[in-house]
Amino acid sequence: MSGEFSFIARHFRQLAGPESLDLRDDCALISCPSGQEMAISTDTMVENVHFLTEDPPETVGRKLLRCNLSDLAAMGAEPYAYTLNVTIPHASRYDDVWFSSFAAGLAEDQKLYGVTLLGGDTTSTAGPLVLSATVFGRLKKDTALRRSGAKAGDSLWVTGTIGDAALGLLALQGKISDPTGFLSERYRLPRPRTGLNLNGLVHAAMDISDGLIQDCGHIAAESGVAIDILADTVPASSAANTLGSQWLEQRLTGGDDYELLLSCAPENESMLVQACSQRNVPVTRIGAIRSGAGVHVLNAEGQVMGIQKKGWQHF
Amino acid sequence: MSGEFSFIARHFRQLAGPESLDLRDDCALISCPSGQEMAISTDTMVENVHFLTEDPPETVGRKLLRCNLSDLAAMGAEPYAYTLNVTIPHASRYDDVWFSSFAAGLAEDQKLYGVTLLGGDTTSTAGPLVLSATVFGRLKKDTALRRSGAKAGDSLWVTGTIGDAALGLLALQGKISDPTGFLSERYRLPRPRTGLNLNGLVHAAMDISDGLIQDCGHIAAESGVAIDILADTVPASSAANTLGSQWLEQRLTGGDDYELLLSCAPENESMLVQACSQRNVPVTRIGAIRSGAGVHVLNAEGQVMGIQKKGWQHF
Repeated sequence: MSGEFSFIARHFRQLAGPESLDLRDDCALISCPSGQEMAISTDTMVENVHFLTEDPPETVGRKLLRCNLSDLAAMGAEPYAYTLNVTIPHASRYDDVWFSSFAAGLAEDQKLYGVTLLGGDTTSTAGPLVLSATVFGRLKKDTALRRSGAKAGDSLWVTGTIGDAALGLLALQGKISDPTGFLSERYRLPRPRTGLNLNGLVHAAMDISDGLIQDCGHIAAESGVAIDILADTVPASSAANTLGSQWLEQRLTGGDDYELLLSCAPENESMLVQACSQRNVPVTRIGAIRSGAGVHVLNAEGQVMGIQKKGWQHF
Repeated sequence: MSGEFSFIARHFRQLAGPESLDLRDDCALISCPSGQEMAISTDTMVENVHFLTEDPPETVGRKLLRCNLSDLAAMGAEPYAYTLNVTIPHASRYDDVWFSSFAAGLAEDQKLYGVTLLGGDTTSTAGPLVLSATVFGRLKKDTALRRSGAKAGDSLWVTGTIGDAALGLLALQGKISDPTGFLSERYRLPRPRTGLNLNGLVHAAMDISDGLIQDCGHIAAESGVAIDILADTVPASSAANTLGSQWLEQRLTGGDDYELLLSCAPENESMLVQACSQRNVPVTRIGAIRSGAGVHVLNAEGQVMGIQKKGWQHF
């Protein structure tokens, strides 16, 4: 048995669902019940770009999976399965012990989110660790939540709190203090908002991965509307509040939140709040959609605030 | 518009099919006609492991796609769509000019194989270029060709010629001569054997990616049988024949062929030959399946040959 095959057997076969054919054939085989569609999303994470070399191995795979699951949540799809591509640096810390914890973390999240591994590929590189996952979710045909449906008159909402992951990265880099570890935990383990039943309740949805302002820009552009964000209303965790208001811009532009950004008609607001409350997911109104273009961040006096950086630049 | 989004628009939007939602949303949405299954496979290629830095950019993306399509061919699935993850080295030769040719190569193969791009992710790395693709094919429910169905009494067949890609890599490394460029072309551009209608004709199938002997080992193990390969009958291209018989072991163990390995009951042999001939695909009987275990390479006198290396080791 060559290196790759025994490596896969040791770490990944335990994660494989029936559709994977036990990771023993050329393809996985899945079926899609009639009346349903499959939502597909893929993400890559690179060592020291999307996670840190020192991050606990249990959290690295979970973060990759959760970032992808967040895309399914944004479309209103129910998580189903995923594939995994692992490109491992030669002679690195990424040994059997590391991958054993990596796979244990994935196993935990598979139970939590109801997904199994379909297949994958394992290769080696002279560079840093590169991980890609492609996730598959199911949803009723023609019910996908889109970025393009926001309408003038809607209100703008977010789940959870905004900016914790970006502050968590600063904490892990030693630039700010994080006595409880809450912020660094939010950087390492996003909480994808799967399981909310928002079909029919919102006009538009997406997940916030590149920073609130930049991602609002996507909804504004795809929907052909203007978005006003009321900066003071953007929910902060108590850990973020403790750091003070000078971190506001960082919070509004920092990536990795993986909360949902939602555009809701006034008549559906109470049902939106109820749907989120049923799943114990906080949801907060942070602005409004109007005709026009672009994203405008307003202070408590309603004046436009100057923001230098818009969000995460991928390269 | 940040770097990633304009890069995607410049190079990849032209490749995107309707299910991609124009690469503008969180997921792609696909449906699966009733009575059908979806076959899924994923592969990663790393610079200077699976392709060479100097390879023409048009061929790099095509090779990635074709290796994946070969897995669909091995299951008897019809190519449908793919996702693409691109992890680009900082300040490298992989600039806009390179990616423009890379995408042009993909566009050509999309037409050839009837696939479109569903989505992807673009990231950066301090290491070499890493490319992953996940492909989707459709097939009638319960008709997938498997590795596990070979039966004692079957004969063993391969499509095309074996060992050209491994010799092509040696040629590109300057170790052997390749006056016509045929061998290096076979390394850079595999020809996945999609479109053969082998449903009901073969007991087992897989694609040869890691070397003939090693891949025969997978069929033997998954089917619980022994495989005898008659070395003299393994088809060689005329370019390989010109190099002489001393390259036989290299040809039987070298990777990257992406031909099909098939196990066929005696009563179906003529129909197998006919099905391949309809698509102008050469197919050759190279051995036999019997009860027992393992892969045995026999010379013209029926004696077992000693082979040192079994096939490609992934790491």
